[in-house]
Amino acid sequence: MIKEIFEHRSIRKYKNTPVDKQIMDDIMSAATRASTSGNMQLYSIIVTTDDAIKKQLSVCHLGQPMVTEAPAVVTFCADIHRFSRWCELREATPAYDNFAWFMDGVIDALLAAQNVVLEAESHSLGICFLGTTTYNADRISQILNLPKGVIPVTSIVMGYPDVEIPLTDRLPLQAVVHDQIYHDYTDQQIDEIWSEREASPQTAELLKINELPNLARIFTERRHLSEDSKSHSRKYFELVKQQGFFNQ
Amino acid sequence: MIKEIFEHRSIRKYKNTPVDKQIMDDIMSAATRASTSGNMQLYSIIVTTDDAIKKQLSVCHLGQPMVTEAPAVVTFCADIHRFSRWCELREATPAYDNFAWFMDGVIDALLAAQNVVLEAESHSLGICFLGTTTYNADRISQILNLPKGVIPVTSIVMGYPDVEIPLTDRLPLQAVVHDQIYHDYTDQQIDEIWSEREASPQTAELLKINELPNLARIFTERRHLSEDSKSHSRKYFELVKQQGFFNQ
Repeated sequence: MIKEIFEHRSIRKYKNTPVDKQIMDDIMSAATRASTSGNMQLYSIIVTTDDAIKKQLSVCHLGQPMVTEAPAVVTFCADIHRFSRWCELREATPAYDNFAWFMDGVIDALLAAQNVVLEAESHSLGICFLGTTTYNADRISQILNLPKGVIPVTSIVMGYPDVEIPLTDRLPLQAVVHDQIYHDYTDQQIDEIWSEREASPQTAELLKINELPNLARIFTERRHLSEDSKSHSRKYFELVKQQGFFNQ
Repeated sequence: MIKEIFEHRSIRKYKNTPVDKQIMDDIMSAATRASTSGNMQLYSIIVTTDDAIKKQLSVCHLGQPMVTEAPAVVTFCADIHRFSRWCELREATPAYDNFAWFMDGVIDALLAAQNVVLEAESHSLGICFLGTTTYNADRISQILNLPKGVIPVTSIVMGYPDVEIPLTDRLPLQAVVHDQIYHDYTDQQIDEIWSEREASPQTAELLKINELPNLARIFTERRHLSEDSKSHSRKYFELVKQQGFFNQ
């Protein structure tokens, strides 16, 4: 049983203690031990600690204070560029500029990312994923100087936690794990899956603040508006094409 | 330092000892502790141990013997269906059927997958990722009975290893980690990055078998042909649309 997995929390408040280079190297080595498609390592990891660059990145991440406060922002990219460059130098003809390899790069990058998270936590560091990475991936690509063939997939902030927080609740295990094949949910099962969360004091508090009758409507009417998601979708897919991952 | 991360190997030969239910539950609990976009858990995990279903799946995975030999095949899917169903039952209007949420589901599924890998390894189990999942995701979706809003992202086989293998080599750390921003590679750096692998006895052996002058050409002319990648790309993207992840 891996302690770090079961004690993982998203940390949003950090001390300004920097991360020692040797520790960061160990964490990055952990990234490289993750499985990778055909041992091709179709990802790049960008570790940003410079205040001026973090400030630029924070704008892309909707100005969340933790992006500038945490000592490091780590951006995980799918990268077919490095491998293709190698092929070209060896007079081999690379053909990784399509959606199948986009997916492979995304998979590689995310398996590496989760290793980074857990290894960082084993060094008493904390992290928080930045779901905003795909919202403004075009701007992030410019700031980080990404060449064609490289695209941001996710980011984390990393540093020593300056806050203690409880574990976040999750849906019951049987809500997300299916036996043999997918078993679609009955209305009753959907009710059961969310019953504990819907009955919690935290939800009651949210409903009061948002003046809405249930938690689902907080998601659809406050947190993620349809037009925003569509706009993010169009922008990110445009970048997928622009960065050369959609020639098929 | 997390031992499992640094000792990870892809296992392709398994004993037929099944995985105890309690151990599997612990492994799946590990999956649910991974970070997830807005605590929405936009993934489903399908654990297949039934021989007849594994046999069907093995065809999708190019008939690799480990798919039927390993006691479990675990398929990780992006899933906006369950969350959308909940919204609908609460008279909230879900709008997760677009590419931005496809990416969120993919990210959720893969972070959970890596937790599964490491937690399984902490129980002396071995795993191997099936990169073939995206090749035949349409057939896999049929076999696993996936409704609209659910799409396979990756799979692993899991079981007790019946083989001992050395660690796989990786590119040097500085090949994949960038300081502050992306630093593009000079020709000389590309040469250096791959020099150790290109000079290895394993590569020499591969060149002999394949009758090719360098390793890059084994990738481009033997392992991954351009037309195959394009075909996988078109098929998988078609499925992304068909499963309702591309309305924007």
